[in-house]
Amino acid sequence: MGSSLESMPNRRYAILGTGALGGYYGACLQRAGLDVHFLLHSDYKHVSEYGLVIESPDGDFTLPQVHAYGDVSEMPHCDVVAVALKTTQNHLLPQLLPAVVKNDGVVLLLQNGLGIEEEVARIVGSERVMGGLCFLCSNKVGPGHIRHLDYKEIKLGEYASDYLPCGITKRMQQIADDFEGAGIPIKLAEDLLLARWQKLVWNIPYNGLSVVLDAMTDELMADVHARSLVEQLMREVVTGARSCARYIPDTFIENMLDHTEKMKPYRTSMKIDYDNRRPLEVEAIFGNPLRVAQAAGANLPQITTLYQQLKFLDARNCR
Amino acid sequence: MGSSLESMPNRRYAILGTGALGGYYGACLQRAGLDVHFLLHSDYKHVSEYGLVIESPDGDFTLPQVHAYGDVSEMPHCDVVAVALKTTQNHLLPQLLPAVVKNDGVVLLLQNGLGIEEEVARIVGSERVMGGLCFLCSNKVGPGHIRHLDYKEIKLGEYASDYLPCGITKRMQQIADDFEGAGIPIKLAEDLLLARWQKLVWNIPYNGLSVVLDAMTDELMADVHARSLVEQLMREVVTGARSCARYIPDTFIENMLDHTEKMKPYRTSMKIDYDNRRPLEVEAIFGNPLRVAQAAGANLPQITTLYQQLKFLDARNCR
Repeated sequence: MGSSLESMPNRRYAILGTGALGGYYGACLQRAGLDVHFLLHSDYKHVSEYGLVIESPDGDFTLPQVHAYGDVSEMPHCDVVAVALKTTQNHLLPQLLPAVVKNDGVVLLLQNGLGIEEEVARIVGSERVMGGLCFLCSNKVGPGHIRHLDYKEIKLGEYASDYLPCGITKRMQQIADDFEGAGIPIKLAEDLLLARWQKLVWNIPYNGLSVVLDAMTDELMADVHARSLVEQLMREVVTGARSCARYIPDTFIENMLDHTEKMKPYRTSMKIDYDNRRPLEVEAIFGNPLRVAQAAGANLPQITTLYQQLKFLDARNCR
Repeated sequence: MGSSLESMPNRRYAILGTGALGGYYGACLQRAGLDVHFLLHSDYKHVSEYGLVIESPDGDFTLPQVHAYGDVSEMPHCDVVAVALKTTQNHLLPQLLPAVVKNDGVVLLLQNGLGIEEEVARIVGSERVMGGLCFLCSNKVGPGHIRHLDYKEIKLGEYASDYLPCGITKRMQQIADDFEGAGIPIKLAEDLLLARWQKLVWNIPYNGLSVVLDAMTDELMADVHARSLVEQLMREVVTGARSCARYIPDTFIENMLDHTEKMKPYRTSMKIDYDNRRPLEVEAIFGNPLRVAQAAGANLPQITTLYQQLKFLDARNCR
């Protein structure tokens, strides 16, 4: 696995989706000297002409020239293809990925939710899939203009069929080196599915309730009933993980609650999508975990409630 | 039971809370020749001077003079004291009821939810409590001005300690006669607790989701996910009823869904309260049923979710 990556000190990166997340990470990689190629949609013309502007508490910077593409067929084949689209765009991946990933390259899914690696494995083969869980707070504030607010760590994990744990591979370490060289802290996960369920412990309650209750994280934590509901939803996520033989201890929930309580008031990414009338990532974050758990015989009624509420709100919001 | 009622052909009625519900039923009773005494709060001065105005598809009518009171201590003792306050005002009942109910009179609780008869029995004794479930669609559109829109039936049930079924009593039939003489169709319930759980089969999903999802009944029925959630919530209400040894068949749910689908688009009473920034009847409709079911060992996670969401929204709305 990853022999070509080893022999190639300067790996070539593709960023599919140059928004708040892909634009930020891609710009950091390019600034660190890597060869980065950006796929854009609505901002293509602007970014080809003016490049990318990043504001960040770590220091603002501008990349006046970037390799910008409006069409994947014009991109070179890349060693690492970072998917930074919203999962609601994943129906495009069968057209995008084969055109841009090298035979011995890897698709790095920088997306939320569960089950997306399986979809991508069907397109490029499971040996060319990795997952990355981003702990990032950033917004796109204009064409090619990204405001990084807080956090930036990525947790990387290898994918294998049925989410069999893969441990730490050389390929992961090399990609980690590239990101760390660009100032992005990386954690390596030995078990991608466990890492994904762990991230859902936060995403399911906060993303879901922020939309349904029109609330920031601090409002949810300050109200005794909302906070209790957050905690109950977290426990159901843990039940879902257990149905996949992934075990998350109670202390994980306590730490997550403590951490969120100490965070600056935060508007979740799903709430930002909702407020901007963009489709919500309901299936990746809620639907897939529910179906996986249900297939394993686990019933998650409180998450089901939130899922159905979000499906209703999403349909009305994007009508 | 009710010997005094028998010997008194013209029963004297008190209406505590002369709003959309109490104002409508009280006005109908007075128009039919009964002796009715209205307790008011904000509309007291207006109604003392100008009486009540009722608009209704059955025919509009005006009562230029009514017995209006701003203070319960000025009211005569009554045979039937109809409580038409929102349950969020029930903390007032220990002051109100002893002053107005005859020794051999009865308090008729025209309120939604569960457990309210028990509270009132602690004030006036369980032999002086009855429940009435109103199927009424009406709004107060101005001081002393009520617009009746649709439905008007009341289901009456006797209360006894622990909601022991009481069957049909003479007292119920006499009150039923008064209401039917005033054009209000009455059903007699042999088992008040069963009737209350049956009403919750509608109230819990539609009142709750109308507020959380900002939706009318027809929107909830037209969306596949919201409709499915309505049905799941109904099934949980049936589980709650079963924990109290009250059995509601599947056909009841099907009829309720069919009926709601055929109804005119309807804004629930809880949604009207929410939109007017009035406190929601969350405890009577959600909290009490949850606690009763939990004490009986039944877990209702979807209703719990809705309850906690409503508590959060209610607290923010009335701040």
